[in-house]
Amino acid sequence: MLKVIAQDFIRLDAIDLVMPLYRELVELTRLEPLNIDYELCIDREDPGHFIFLETWPDRAALDAHCETEHFRRLVPQIDAFQRSADTYIQMRPAFA
Amino acid sequence: MLKVIAQDFIRLDAIDLVMPLYRELVELTRLEPLNIDYELCIDREDPGHFIFLETWPDRAALDAHCETEHFRRLVPQIDAFQRSADTYIQMRPAFA
Repeated sequence: MLKVIAQDFIRLDAIDLVMPLYRELVELTRLEPLNIDYELCIDREDPGHFIFLETWPDRAALDAHCETEHFRRLVPQIDAFQRSADTYIQMRPAFA
Repeated sequence: MLKVIAQDFIRLDAIDLVMPLYRELVELTRLEPLNIDYELCIDREDPGHFIFLETWPDRAALDAHCETEHFRRLVPQIDAFQRSADTYIQMRPAFA
């Protein structure tokens, strides 16, 4: 089991522009047969700080996600509105 | 709905000492009637980087958690083995 926290930092003047891109990315990723969970959250103290909480069976499933049409099309469009670089943490459950 | 990411950074020589404390904290927190989800993960690149993924109905439930006997007893014991300060992000789901 692979858990991922992916954090985006978006320009505050671009939030309305990224929301439909995020919505499409979430909807299409949840349709991927290997996706277990894929949720997008927003920092209560920073409306431009977006946090993906992801669950995949393994690294191969995450790699396949990053090669999908929707990921390759939508993520560069989202990243065009970044105010700083995104960050990633890959994790495993502490207790089996 | 309130989602929380709480991150602890533990000394690498103390991991065996904190694991039973974390296990008890997770087990007792999951018994709290207001807890929706409480999962502890470990960074795949840093065995001392512990990440709680939490879901609560609201801020009052999180505040009540922080006042429980198990939280007030176990968290200071865990924090004694920190190598740097813990961090917290409080979040809401991006899409209802």
